[in-house]
This record gives sequence, C-alpha cells and structure tokens, in this order.
Amino acid sequence: MSYFQTPAIAYEGPKSKNPFSFKYYNPKEIVMGKTMAEQCRFAMSYWHTLTYMGNDPFGAATMYRPWDQTADVMEKAFHRVHAAFELMEKLQIPFFCFHDADIAPRAATLKETNERLDLVVDVMEEEMERTGIRCLWGTTNAFGDDRFVHGAGTSCNADVFAYAAAQIKKAMELTRQLGGANYVFWGGREGYETLLNTDTAFELDNLARLLWMAVDYAREIDFRGQLLIEPKPKEPTKHQYDFDAAAVLAFLRKYDLLEHFKLNIEANHATLAQHTFQHELNLCRINGVLGSVDANQGDPMLGWDTDQFPTNLYDTTLAMYEILLDGGFTKGGLNFDAKVRRGSFEEEDLFLAYIAGMDTFARGLKVAAALLTDGVLEDFKKERYQSYNIGIGRQIVEGRVGLRELEAYALEHGSGKNRSGRQEMLEMLLNQYIIETA
Amino acid sequence: MSYFQTPAIAYEGPKSKNPFSFKYYNPKEIVMGKTMAEQCRFAMSYWHTLTYMGNDPFGAATMYRPWDQTADVMEKAFHRVHAAFELMEKLQIPFFCFHDADIAPRAATLKETNERLDLVVDVMEEEMERTGIRCLWGTTNAFGDDRFVHGAGTSCNADVFAYAAAQIKKAMELTRQLGGANYVFWGGREGYETLLNTDTAFELDNLARLLWMAVDYAREIDFRGQLLIEPKPKEPTKHQYDFDAAAVLAFLRKYDLLEHFKLNIEANHATLAQHTFQHELNLCRINGVLGSVDANQGDPMLGWDTDQFPTNLYDTTLAMYEILLDGGFTKGGLNFDAKVRRGSFEEEDLFLAYIAGMDTFARGLKVAAALLTDGVLEDFKKERYQSYNIGIGRQIVEGRVGLRELEAYALEHGSGKNRSGRQEMLEMLLNQYIIETA
Amino acid sequence: MSYFQTPAIAYEGPKSKNPFSFKYYNPKEIVMGKTMAEQCRFAMSYWHTLTYMGNDPFGAATMYRPWDQTADVMEKAFHRVHAAFELMEKLQIPFFCFHDADIAPRAATLKETNERLDLVVDVMEEEMERTGIRCLWGTTNAFGDDRFVHGAGTSCNADVFAYAAAQIKKAMELTRQLGGANYVFWGGREGYETLLNTDTAFELDNLARLLWMAVDYAREIDFRGQLLIEPKPKEPTKHQYDFDAAAVLAFLRKYDLLEHFKLNIEANHATLAQHTFQHELNLCRINGVLGSVDANQGDPMLGWDTDQFPTNLYDTTLAMYEILLDGGFTKGGLNFDAKVRRGSFEEEDLFLAYIAGMDTFARGLKVAAALLTDGVLEDFKKERYQSYNIGIGRQIVEGRVGLRELEAYALEHGSGKNRSGRQEMLEMLLNQYIIETA
Amino acid sequence: MSYFQTPAIAYEGPKSKNPFSFKYYNPKEIVMGKTMAEQCRFAMSYWHTLTYMGNDPFGAATMYRPWDQTADVMEKAFHRVHAAFELMEKLQIPFFCFHDADIAPRAATLKETNERLDLVVDVMEEEMERTGIRCLWGTTNAFGDDRFVHGAGTSCNADVFAYAAAQIKKAMELTRQLGGANYVFWGGREGYETLLNTDTAFELDNLARLLWMAVDYAREIDFRGQLLIEPKPKEPTKHQYDFDAAAVLAFLRKYDLLEHFKLNIEANHATLAQHTFQHELNLCRINGVLGSVDANQGDPMLGWDTDQFPTNLYDTTLAMYEILLDGGFTKGGLNFDAKVRRGSFEEEDLFLAYIAGMDTFARGLKVAAALLTDGVLEDFKKERYQSYNIGIGRQIVEGRVGLRELEAYALEHGSGKNRSGRQEMLEMLLNQYIIETA
Repeated sequence: MSYFQTPAIAYEGPKSKNPFSFKYYNPKEIVMGKTMAEQCRFAMSYWHTLTYMGNDPFGAATMYRPWDQTADVMEKAFHRVHAAFELMEKLQIPFFCFHDADIAPRAATLKETNERLDLVVDVMEEEMERTGIRCLWGTTNAFGDDRFVHGAGTSCNADVFAYAAAQIKKAMELTRQLGGANYVFWGGREGYETLLNTDTAFELDNLARLLWMAVDYAREIDFRGQLLIEPKPKEPTKHQYDFDAAAVLAFLRKYDLLEHFKLNIEANHATLAQHTFQHELNLCRINGVLGSVDANQGDPMLGWDTDQFPTNLYDTTLAMYEILLDGGFTKGGLNFDAKVRRGSFEEEDLFLAYIAGMDTFARGLKVAAALLTDGVLEDFKKERYQSYNIGIGRQIVEGRVGLRELEAYALEHGSGKNRSGRQEMLEMLLNQYIIETA
Repeated sequence: MSYFQTPAIAYEGPKSKNPFSFKYYNPKEIVMGKTMAEQCRFAMSYWHTLTYMGNDPFGAATMYRPWDQTADVMEKAFHRVHAAFELMEKLQIPFFCFHDADIAPRAATLKETNERLDLVVDVMEEEMERTGIRCLWGTTNAFGDDRFVHGAGTSCNADVFAYAAAQIKKAMELTRQLGGANYVFWGGREGYETLLNTDTAFELDNLARLLWMAVDYAREIDFRGQLLIEPKPKEPTKHQYDFDAAAVLAFLRKYDLLEHFKLNIEANHATLAQHTFQHELNLCRINGVLGSVDANQGDPMLGWDTDQFPTNLYDTTLAMYEILLDGGFTKGGLNFDAKVRRGSFEEEDLFLAYIAGMDTFARGLKVAAALLTDGVLEDFKKERYQSYNIGIGRQIVEGRVGLRELEAYALEHGSGKNRSGRQEMLEMLLNQYIIETA
Repeated sequence: MSYFQTPAIAYEGPKSKNPFSFKYYNPKEIVMGKTMAEQCRFAMSYWHTLTYMGNDPFGAATMYRPWDQTADVMEKAFHRVHAAFELMEKLQIPFFCFHDADIAPRAATLKETNERLDLVVDVMEEEMERTGIRCLWGTTNAFGDDRFVHGAGTSCNADVFAYAAAQIKKAMELTRQLGGANYVFWGGREGYETLLNTDTAFELDNLARLLWMAVDYAREIDFRGQLLIEPKPKEPTKHQYDFDAAAVLAFLRKYDLLEHFKLNIEANHATLAQHTFQHELNLCRINGVLGSVDANQGDPMLGWDTDQFPTNLYDTTLAMYEILLDGGFTKGGLNFDAKVRRGSFEEEDLFLAYIAGMDTFARGLKVAAALLTDGVLEDFKKERYQSYNIGIGRQIVEGRVGLRELEAYALEHGSGKNRSGRQEMLEMLLNQYIIETA
Repeated sequence: MSYFQTPAIAYEGPKSKNPFSFKYYNPKEIVMGKTMAEQCRFAMSYWHTLTYMGNDPFGAATMYRPWDQTADVMEKAFHRVHAAFELMEKLQIPFFCFHDADIAPRAATLKETNERLDLVVDVMEEEMERTGIRCLWGTTNAFGDDRFVHGAGTSCNADVFAYAAAQIKKAMELTRQLGGANYVFWGGREGYETLLNTDTAFELDNLARLLWMAVDYAREIDFRGQLLIEPKPKEPTKHQYDFDAAAVLAFLRKYDLLEHFKLNIEANHATLAQHTFQHELNLCRINGVLGSVDANQGDPMLGWDTDQFPTNLYDTTLAMYEILLDGGFTKGGLNFDAKVRRGSFEEEDLFLAYIAGMDTFARGLKVAAALLTDGVLEDFKKERYQSYNIGIGRQIVEGRVGLRELEAYALEHGSGKNRSGRQEMLEMLLNQYIIETA
C-alpha cells in the first residue's frame, strides 16, 4: 500500500523548475570530506509529520491523511509507521525522531500502553531493516497528558514524578531497541505558571534527581546514545527551567550532570529566548555540549513556537558554520521539528516543505563550507585578537599578571589603538557567499 | 550652600495629600524585626541623580542643575558631592552607589584621572563622616569611553584589557576607602555586536581571567565587601555575556568563581531578558547568590532600559518577598538605579521620584511581611508539595529509588490525583494584601 | 439538577477571609450615580467557561465538567445552557456572550447546524426569562472550521465567503432573538500567513463588502444592537487585518463604515499589539467608538493570547477611568473573555477566577471614580494645556494663524518655558488611590 | 581639500574580491525599463553620515572625522557639506536627505539659526550644481531640543507649537530652494510618556492643525514636493501617534489630509511596530500612499532603533517587489537612514557600509524584477483568487448579493474545497531566485 501519490524526490540542480526536486541537496556530493547526507544527517519528526493535523488554538484539523482513515487506534499506528517510512524513502531522509506518544496511542493503563509501544516498535524495526533508515533519537512525552499539568519531574505530586520516571524508562528502552543515537529530554511542563504557588528550589532538585536516575539507568541497560536536554524558554509553561542553553549549562554544572548531557538546540526555541539560532549553537560549541539540532524556524514577529520549516539561508548557513566548526555531527543530526503550515494541508505540501528545509540547509552547508575553506571569517578573527599572542596580551592569557601589573602597564602605555570590527563588510561578504558559492 | 529649595521630606502617613511627604516609608517603623530603613537599605545612584541631564538618543539635555553651572570640571565634581549629600539627607537615604566616572571627570591620562578621583573621594569621605551616609557599592565605568568600543575584559585589544584592569584596581581601592559594602561588575560592553567577528570562547576566558584578578586583588588589599555581578541581556551591546542570572551562574560555576561572587539584580534588566524581577531574585535566592538590588522598573511595552523609578506595587511586593525569604539584606540594599523621566526635569521631580520609589518599596515591604507573617503563600506551598514528605515521594527525595522502582510503583499506582494550583485565587489574595495590609 | 457544589457568592467586604466571597464587588453599591452592577455590566463568556477543557497546543484536557459527561452532543449542549445559567446566577453575572459554535455543535450541513442552534437558543431564552440574565453580545465562529483556513470574508475561496455570510446572518438573527445588546465581529482568520501568496487589497475590499452586507441585513431585520469589531494583531494568523484600534479605524473610515461600527477592546489583544489596555480604550474614546470590553489580561512576558482573568489593579483602574470618562457603558459591558488556567481545573477555580476578575474590576471602578471625583488627573491636565486657552494658543486652536504668523510669533517670543510632566508624582498618586480609596 | 582617502567606488561584478567595489550595484544596468540608478534613487542621510560620532546611551563618541576638527561651528558645517558631496560622488549616490539641524548648528535665536541655515544652504546649492547630486527630501528636527520635551505640534505649551511651526516653515523653504522632491514629517516627540498627564484628543487635533498649516504654506510658496509622514511606534517617546502606517492612515482620513500626504516607510520602524518592512510598504501601496523609503534594518532581537545598514536580502527583495508593483518610485527613493555600527568607526567603514546597503538593495531589485518578470508570485495569486471571477464570487465583488442570497447559496453548495496556500514552496522559490537570478 502506498500513502503518497508524489513520486520520489531527486536532485535536479539549482536551475530546475520542478518544485518536486532538490535544487541544492545532492546527498552524495562531498562537502568538507563527507557526503552532504553525512554532514546533514536529516531526520523526520514523527509528531509533526504523522500526527499533526493542522489544529491550532483557534482552529480544528485541516489535514486528512490516508493513514488516519480508520477508527482502530492500533491499526492507525501501524499505518503511520508505513506512511512514515514511505515518506522518508521518497525524500531520502536517513533518520527519524519520535516520542512514545507519537507512535502508539495511550491506553488506560501504563502496562497496556507499554504493550502497545512494543507492538509498534517491532514494526518500526522491520521497516528500519527494510530501508536502512535509522533512529536519531527517541523521547517520552511527559507534558501532554493531564497528569503532567503541574510538571513531570517537577510536579508537586510525587506519584506523577514516578509515572514520568516510568515513561522515561520505557522510552529509553525503546530508543535503545531501535538503535537510537540519542535520547532527548524536553521538559515542556518543567517550569512554573506562577511563583505564587511554586517552590523552585525543590522542583529543580527533583528535576536533577530524575536526570540522575536516567543517567544511572542508561548505564544499567548499556544505552550508549547521547543524552540530550532541549532548552525552551516558555510555552506551554509561563517559564521553563531549561530556559536557554545558559540556563541548562548552569543547571548541569550545579548538579554535576555536565559530563552526561549535551544539548539539543531548536532554532525556534532559541529565538523565543531572544537569542539567535547561531548564538545557542555557538554557546554549546564553546562549552563542548553541542549535541543535536532541531531544525526549524520561528517568525521573529510572533511570540509562540511556530515550528516552521527552515527556509532562511542566513540561519542555515550560520548554523552549519557552527556545526562545522565543532567538527560536524557525530551522534547528532538535523531533525526537522517542523510542521507544514495549517494552510499547507495537502499531501504535496509535506514533500514541498521537506524539500524546502533540506535544500535550505544543504545550501547553508555549502556556503558555510566555502566560508571556512576560504577562511574569510576565521582569518579575520585571528587577526583581530592577535594582540593576545604577544607582549602584555600573552602575559594576560598565561596568567602571569594581575591588576597591579596591568595598572603599571596601563599607566605607561594607555589603552592603545582600536581597529574597526567591520560588521557591515562582513555582512556583505556573507551575502556574496550566499549568492555566489558554486 | 544649598542646592535644593525643597525642604527635607518626612513621613506623614498614607492619608497625606502633601506630595512632598512619605506616605508609606516610615524609616523607624519596625517590620519583621528590623526598622524599615534597615530592611530597605535605600541607596541613591550617583550617575542618574547627579549626572543625568535628560539626554536620550534623540534629544539633548532638559535638566539644568545648579551644581553644573560652572565650566571648571573639578569644581563641578565637588559641587556634585555636596548636592548629592544634601539630597540624600533631605530624602533620608542612607546609602549611595557610584562609578568612578560619575564622581570625577576623566583626564588625559590614567594617572591624572586617578589623582582627580582621590581629590573627590576625600571630599566624599568628609561628607560621609558629617552625615553618617554610607557607600553601598562602587564600580568602574569600563563601557563609556571609546577605548571600550569592543569590550573591556573581552576586548580584542590586550591593551584595553590592561586599562580596564587598572580602572578596576583603582575603583576597588576607592570603594574600600569609602567603606563600600560591595563592589559591582556590570559588563556593559562585555558581549558582541556580531558573531561574524567574535571569538566568544576566548572572550569569556578572558572575562574570567579579569574577575579572578579582581578576586585576588580584593584579598590582597583586604577588601571585605561583596563582589557582585550585574546581569543584563543587551544594550548597549547586541548580546551581553552576563545575559541573565542563569547565564551568570553558568559562567561562575564554569570558572570556579561561584564562592567569590553574588549578583546584583536590576528589575529592568530582568524584564529585558524576558524574566520577571521576582524570577531573577528567586533564582539568586535559591542559589545563594542574592547580593543586592538595582531598584527600578522598565516599561513592558518598550525594548530598552528605561530605568524608571519603581512605582509598581506588585513588583516591589514580590521583590521584597524574595528578599525577606532570603533573610533580608546583609551587605546589599535597594539602589535606585533609576532616573527621572526626561520630561520630569525640575528639581522637585528628583524628590518626587525618590519619594515614589521609596514609598512603593516601603509598601511592598509591608505587604510582603504581612504575607509572610500570615504564611498564606508559604503554607499553600507546603501543602502543595506534601506528597514528598511520605511514601514514594520521600523515597525519591532521599534517593532511595531509581527508574526501575518508580516504574514498578507507577504500574501499580498510576499517577494519582492532581489538585488545582489555584493561581487566580492567589492573585486575588495578593491584591487583597496590597490594598488591605495595615 | 445542579452542576456546581459551590454555593452562591455574596459580598462580604474587603476584610473577609472567605475566598468564596466578593471583597470589592458590591453589586448594589452606588458609584458615580449608578450601581456597581450597572457600571460594570459583567458578562460570562460562554466559550471559555463552558467549552474550554484545559487543552493547549502541547497538552490535552485537564478539566472534566459534569455537563460534558454525555456522548450525545445535543444533550451536552442543553446541559451547558443550564450549567451556564446556574454559574451566572451564583456569581451574580447579569450578562453572557456567545459564538454560535459555543452553544450548539456543528452538524454535517448548514441547514442542520442552524436547526440545532434554534433548539438551543429556545432553551437559552427560557433560562433568560427565568433568571433575568441578558445577552451582551453574540457572534459567529468563522475561524475554527477548516473551511476558514484561508479566512472567511477574506478567503480566496468565494464559496467560503458565502458560507461565512450565511453564518453571520444566522448568528445575527439568534442574537436579535436573544435581545443581544451588540453583535461582534472578530476576524480570527482575516489576515495572512505570508504576503507571498496574498492579495491584501482584494481581501480588504472583500472584508468591507461583507461588513456592509451585515449592516444592510441588520437594518433589514431591525436588529438594533451595536455592531462591534474586535481588533487583534495576530494569532492564529501571522497578521490580522484588524491589528489594533488604529488599523480598524483606518479601515472603517476608508470604507465609510465608521457610523455603523464601534470597537470591542480586549486587554490581551491590546498588549499583543504592544499597546496598553488603556491606550486602546483611550483611542476608541476620543474617536467615539468605545463599544464594549473583553476583560482579561495577558502576561507581558508571553507572546500569545493567554486570556487570563484580570487581576491587575492598574489595568482595571485605568480601564474603568477611560470608560467613566466616556460616560460609562451604554450597550457595552465587561465580558470576561478569560479562561481559568490549565492548572486551575477544579470547579472551585471557575468561581475563584470570576471572583478575582469581578473584584479587581470593582476595585478599579471605585479607584477610577475617586480619581475622577477628586479631579486629580483631569485638573492636572487642564492646567497643563492652559496655554491654548489664551493668546497664541487660542489662535492656533481657533485656526486663525498659519506658519507665517507663527514664525513671526516665534521670532519675537522664542519658545517659552516648559513645565515638568510630573510622571513619577502621578504614578505615586495612583498608587495611593489604589490603596487608600475608601 | 579631500576628506576621504578611499578612492571612488566602481562596479566590479559579483565575483570581485575587492571590498571597495560594487558587486551588484551597476548604476547604468537596465532593470525593468529603467537604470538601476533610476530604480533605486539612493540617498545619503546627512545626519547619520556626517554628524553621528558613535555615541550611544551608554557610551561616548568613537568616530573622529576630519570635517569635525575645528572649533568653529560654522566652519565645521561648511566642511560637512564638502565632505558629504565628496562621499556621495565617490559612492555614486545621487541624492541626499537632511534635517535643518544636521546642516547648521542651532544659534541662540531663531533668527540667527535661520541665517546660519541660509549660509550653509547656499554652499550646498553650489555643490549640487557642481556634482548633479539632488535633494530627495528635507525636514526639520523638532524633537531634539529641550523645548520639544513634551512634543512639538502636540506640545502642551502653545509657544512650542509656534516654534515648531516656524521651524517647519523655514525647513520647507530650504527644501524648496534645494529642489527637494519631498518634505518629511517625523514626529519623534509627538506622542506621550504617560496617559496620566495627556489629553490625546487635544494633542491629535493640534497635530492635524499643524499639518494643515504646512499644506497651506506649501501651496502658498508653490512647493511641489510630496509631503510625507514617517511612522514610528515609539522611541524616544513611549508611544508615538504615528505608530505605524495604519495609524497614520486613520489619522489622515480623520482629518481629511489623505490627499496631501504620502508615507515615508522606514524598515526599522516597521519592525519596532511588529510589522515586516514588506507589510508596511504593502499597506501603503494598496492605499496609494507609498511615498518614499528609509532603507535600513533593525535587529529582530533588539527593541530599539538600531538603524543598521540594510544587508538582508529577503528584506530588500520583498521591499523592491512592493515598490516595483507600485510602478517604481516617482518622487521617492531609498534613503539610507542608517548609521555605521559604533565599532565600525573608521573612514573605510562609511564606504563599506554604503556599499553593503547599495549592493543588497541592487540585488534585491534584480531578484524582485525576475520574480515579477517571470510572474511566479503574481500568477500564483491570480490562480488563487480565481473563484471571484465567476459565479457567486463575481456576484460578491460586483455587489449583487447580500447575506440573504449568500445564505441561500451556502445552504445549497456548502463551502466548497480549499486549496493549499503553498507557503513553503513559495519560500523556497524565493530562495532559488535570490541565489540564481542572473
């Protein structure tokens, strides 16, 4: 059975007028020593692709998918698996990401839910074997059910904490079974609605307790995937504890968890926290915690998570720049945590949206690689900080001077001459690379 | 010589119709075991009060102060000292805060600048002795001069780093001389304008080097004041490294500086980072780093630092609530890092603005004290988290269970029943306390 | 049958510790010549109160209401009517507002949907008769169904325009039948997602065509309620044409619709457009189009429509101030377009939230009335603009001078002396009134 | 005398590695029937280019320009004229824009200020004649001096109103003398700081009075330039009356000024009002009031007017798209209301920044022209709205049906089938055009 009439998408090059083709994503093309496919490690998000029906807070579903045309919830779940793999094959997407709740419907009891999960995961394994498609990461949904109304690991209700722990255990086992390269924690309800009723100190301690349990259990079952935390500042909660990369780093350091976790950076979460996507990736890179990426984009004029497919060349170029500076992905990848617009409700839009996202990142990869290969930015920076390679600068870096010595130096030398930072020139250079990179 | 025609301000009680009186700030009234004066530890900010003339990015000065009516820059500096102390005396403000650049004009050389500072500080000491007014904190201005165009401790120019270090050394010495209870670091240019030209890893390492030098020097000269870092997300730079309390905590932990620093939280900086004032205070409190407070407010509709005098009762109540929960100030205080509006350019406005700020915080203190004394919020919280005092909750807190045990528990017990968080009731309760507290 | 265990809510005065009582809302108390009930004209919103179940974009229902415990959709609709009136009676709410979609479920055909509406409206009429509760306004939901995915009056699909027109016709008839004092247009999908596919000129012309049809039809059926447009800047659409009051005024003037429409101002929509609630009310007042109010509040740190119950005393005071300056409501009222927080999922929270909103507005009314009666702000303004009552100011106002005469005047007189705007003093005065008003 | 060591900038094509060359701006190249120079009508802003010294609210000047190295204010003014024209010549900029306050320093009296202006304008005329460079628009600065602290046309002080009127008169005369194609009104202080002290109705009436005086005077002196209003939502005031294009349209319609004014849209002002640049241009175009453009950009993460040189290809492409749809500029042009970054303080940066802005707009022009010539977006839109060309759609547009007829239609036909809006496909198409346009 086929779920999509759209044929498989192939690379046709930048001049193609066929919307159903890749213009920039040429999977086998070598860029900085790896194929594009290896550099990008694209992943399909199960939730936005298979289960998002176009609902928004003010409106009902607009999308009617062939895999949903059955009343039997398990049958629907199996259809979704097959539809997912057909889509990935046709789009040449080598990875997928999932929450437990995406793949199998909740049942009345945890036990039954887990049984359902097992049934579906078996089918997923078959499809993975058939297609060679792999799991980038799995996670549990510990935010959607009403039980998590006051949080999961930070719930004021200890039974809810226990339930979340049980879900994590199962989801980690499933991720391990599917060979997932990472396991993600996104704490959608780990935060507060109002400080009037919240003991933040206690809740954060509990969150750390839960993460330590997960670390211990991963070790116990020999799960070798990377554990990842995904920051988001707010939505659905008023304030989420994992506000941004800095907040997560502060937390991980406080609770001695830094060696066990990396971060999963989402573009739209970055901008909701008033950071650029590049900023968050950069902060992770320089702290050695750049794990994986949720590749989407928000609208800078809108204050909620729009999860749009990424089509901004600046964002993808500068993101790939940081990723390449970090040595490229090892376990991580580019997961399209993105949904087609509510008005893009036709089957074709799923393809067109993934093409847009993949092409925009592929172009970003090439531009970033050209910038790095030519060294235009890195050479500029080297020159800019050169005063720290010699004289007083070198002494500062080597820790051989203190305030007293520096005062003596300043009294004698003043503060020297500054040079322009050349922001406008560099921005135009970036434009030229975006347009002209071959 | 007198600089102000306005007479000294006295407490007249909440029914007074005299704008030039305190309605709520009754310095000797006991609130939770201390006088209001001791609880609030109000401070005048030297810069906004003495040197702000009403300029903004689109407009020139509107304020013409008697202490500025001389062409001699040092004479002007001495006038400012006297005006400052007259104002503080008349307003019963027991503390002041200053940057070096506020009290004495920069000279052509560092040496001469330092000599000027010494001259002015001597006069300040005399005035402090005469009046009993004390120094809450001092700092250096390492952001205004063109030499700091690319940062101070994070400058790409090593000579600038040295110059900043020299300034800090001198400012710390002056603060020590004046008996300052704290020394503040606000890194107004420690950040970046564009990542295209910035090596963030190197700059942050350098910032840590500078702070360690300051720690060492404080020890060397036996400066016992608390070192404070003041977060701000942006402005003047596009991104400041000390973005918010979480970013500062991550930084301090990374560079092993946590035991040496606390934070100086500014209300308007909090909101520019999309946090409430209370949130930032709360985060500091639960991390043991609530040092001092810059008491002002921003406009939630405006995206820049308006530094308004604080007149919002919700903000002052909830701020004082956190401060009281933290045990009240020890070295810190409430520094009015606030300036009269550009349109409030008359002498009287300086008084009226300080009265507004002091009265609003005094009322906030009383309301917060009533909330705490009656226990209405804390009791609600205790009840809310009670499931962690017994059974599985207690086992979680005591670290006696892991994912495996919690799964077993959840399989047996489900997730229990949640209770409402009662946000609306608590918000109305807060209103009632704001209005009705005696 | 009773749906609520909570007993009826009575006024107990500001010292009451009973959460289930009004502290400030004393319906029969006279304020500025009318009872509080007449001044406030509170209304229950049918949708948030009866049909909101706690869902948000990341989570499922948390609220399980007794009136929803049936599978029969019409039976559920009838239960809702009875529950609604019980709640209003117990809370002393004299009005309600509704969308067609709130009161009766959509059926397969328009014809059948309309028949369902008729059945429910008959029951509503009975309840209105029984209780004396009235309809503040009705409207149609022309944004939720998938047919409105690209707009209703601004849809690119003419059949959808026709369908929206049919819905409006029916909803207006039902509102007339229920004696509704107003009929509201909120164009939740009247806007665009991207300009790349949108002909804004054509869509706005069509929107005007639709509104003119409504004006004509209201006249035809002798519907004497006020037609209202409710601005909102965005959400669900990226950009809504009725962005804010100014955008609506520009639209109404362009299409000669100004005499036929007033505005329904929602607090949270105002702040999403970066205006204060007071600003939008003020703009309506001075343009003679202040129709009615959706009384809620947003969170200034959040970029979406949180629709919280209004508990901010500043907002309610300044809102009531504008409403009183406008002469008080005639047809309009204070509709609580507000929902309990997702975590406030218990029955009691519905009562506590309405109490909070009603008490906060009642207090705002009293404070606003005191400010007006004492004249403290209006007298300040009169004094401030007095230069236009005499001399050159008067000549300007009377249109007797032009640039040439004013240049002659300025050459001779300069620009005179300005006086302080006294912002801080006025803000503190407002605080004093909020706390001290008897 | 020469003020710049940088030689004249020439077009070298997109592959050039010379930063001091145009890669995309080829002035004589024909694009859609006109030369690029005619399509773009680039203008230098006198203020940001000649008088901005790098100051910001937290820092002093960083730029030391050769034309400022004299203490004589008038000598400095003459130097500025010569420097301005040298820069424009070297950059091939055909227009300039100015405030009165930019070209000549204020004197003690209005009379003397006007005399100074006359002296400088005479020199400007000579330079214009020598070079062929023209004036795009002039304006007065009625916001910077302390007299305008409470507004100019909306001041509470009638003498200030008169003074502003006198300034406008003179500035309009000077603009006429210089052959200015437009005269601009930007009301930087026309708004309010707090509603507590403001009579908005009175102030807006006064603003209209002032604009009518300007209309009358323009007619009297036969000034044929276009009068323009420039919207901005805030900064320096908390709220500016000319908030955005919609607010200005509402104002112009209310006061019957619409036929006399068009709008000058600034990109950064648009985004501060939470609109895209394209949105504001689009709204002007469909209302027939697209006058001129202030070509700059803001930072979407920053809440103030950064006035950066425009380097975002999406913005310039979509802006030029609207301008071309409007038939191209007649009197208007692209004025770089942009300043080099504070850290770009070297002479070369002035050149590099203008090059960046001109190249980015030139590229935008070519991409927009290609999109229009190929018809890809316009054809998509035509197809999208085709249902209004026939049947019920046509009847709606022609005004031949009302609610009654449309209900009958809907009862019979339902709402038909919607088609996808194809947002993602169109966004990718835009990317392809940005990269591939020849």
